[in-house]
Amino acid sequence: MSERIWTAGLVVIGDEILSGRTQDKNVAQVAAWLNVQGIRLAEVRVVPDVTAAIVEAVNVLRTRNDYLFTTGGIGPTHDDITVDAIAEALGVPVVHHPKALAVLERYYETRGGLTEARKRMARVPEGAELIENRMSGAPGIRIANIFVMAGVPHITAGMLDALTGTLEGGLPVISRTIGCWVAESEVAVLLGEVERAHEGVAIGSYPFFREGKTGANFVVRSTDQRVVDACIADLTARLEAESRAVVPDGI
Amino acid sequence: MSERIWTAGLVVIGDEILSGRTQDKNVAQVAAWLNVQGIRLAEVRVVPDVTAAIVEAVNVLRTRNDYLFTTGGIGPTHDDITVDAIAEALGVPVVHHPKALAVLERYYETRGGLTEARKRMARVPEGAELIENRMSGAPGIRIANIFVMAGVPHITAGMLDALTGTLEGGLPVISRTIGCWVAESEVAVLLGEVERAHEGVAIGSYPFFREGKTGANFVVRSTDQRVVDACIADLTARLEAESRAVVPDGI
Repeated sequence: MSERIWTAGLVVIGDEILSGRTQDKNVAQVAAWLNVQGIRLAEVRVVPDVTAAIVEAVNVLRTRNDYLFTTGGIGPTHDDITVDAIAEALGVPVVHHPKALAVLERYYETRGGLTEARKRMARVPEGAELIENRMSGAPGIRIANIFVMAGVPHITAGMLDALTGTLEGGLPVISRTIGCWVAESEVAVLLGEVERAHEGVAIGSYPFFREGKTGANFVVRSTDQRVVDACIADLTARLEAESRAVVPDGI
Repeated sequence: MSERIWTAGLVVIGDEILSGRTQDKNVAQVAAWLNVQGIRLAEVRVVPDVTAAIVEAVNVLRTRNDYLFTTGGIGPTHDDITVDAIAEALGVPVVHHPKALAVLERYYETRGGLTEARKRMARVPEGAELIENRMSGAPGIRIANIFVMAGVPHITAGMLDALTGTLEGGLPVISRTIGCWVAESEVAVLLGEVERAHEGVAIGSYPFFREGKTGANFVVRSTDQRVVDACIADLTARLEAESRAVVPDGI
């Protein structure tokens, strides 16, 4: 029986990413967190603060994947339209979540009170649950297979932390890396041969230029630790047979 | 007459981004470069090293936008499948480009010669032109409205440089930023009012937490410098009328 692979999609919402103003950090952190849960990030879409664009991306990726994550657009200002877009995608109304209102009321008690603008952060698509946010007042949102997270990376990190271990997944992907000061073109044939010789592995080749020299890291991935170890051993032996110095754990 | 807006899509190709191993830097650099050309980045999709996934993303985004850029997967190894996927998306065969072969032959003359693996980097969809790459042997590829670039960010930077000024675009988006040590929820209503009062501007609000304090940057965008300046002046005056200290050029 072949193992079931669990997948997730991610929609990154924000003009600031598409304008080049902000360097996204959520893709990498969501990807790494998902892998520990045994879930593979299958596709990312970065869309602007435009309702129709968010609705389209959410509807495609939530249907194709076991889970869908979004980041960005859940604050109190006029450009925060994620909640409305998700509600539209699901065909449900937007309501104020009583527990979110209570959380925000407590959080803003000593910070000037719960204004109308701040109440916006308690708005959720009807039927949603909250994802805890220890960093600031506004919680994340879970509805159906959708997880709505903050845009600010350290707040998203806290929300992921709150979700750790709660999602069903499969076997996590194990990876090991070796490095070599070589132009990848010199070992391209060898890499392809090694990948074909080890069923269930994928070998990624990542070239770089440092200190005026050409090198590459080779990443071996599989869900089976023994398969990864055997493939790394074989790849190392074949590179060393060509008198190439291999750097364990990569360069 | 309303001005024409030119748009581009970007497909980032690579398992290393989706696994969280590598922090993407191409979205931000392509976005910033496009803006200088008067072209807006309308959507980004990050897809794995899987032909069907690349073909789908390329076909949707090249049709929706004036231009389509891709990054990643143009090296000499078995996991570099971008050229084949683009050819499939366009329904054309893959051929060796004579000029690319000549460039690679010259580049590898003193580096061990042009092997079969290295010849892979001269493969292009039939009908393609080359994009110059001063950094390493392998050129980028231009075919129809598609621009195929490297995954390694400094090589992509060189290819963008070679393309500067060659693409038709519209007016670049002008942006100005001011900062304020305030929770964005306290000025959310004000921000919305200012945006509505200035036609053709978009105001983005980007909160952060630094040195234990809450702050936000407000970015005003428009294609008209005078409109941006007027909006910034109005926003500054309204914030100062509430006794909030405004930091010019952002925090």
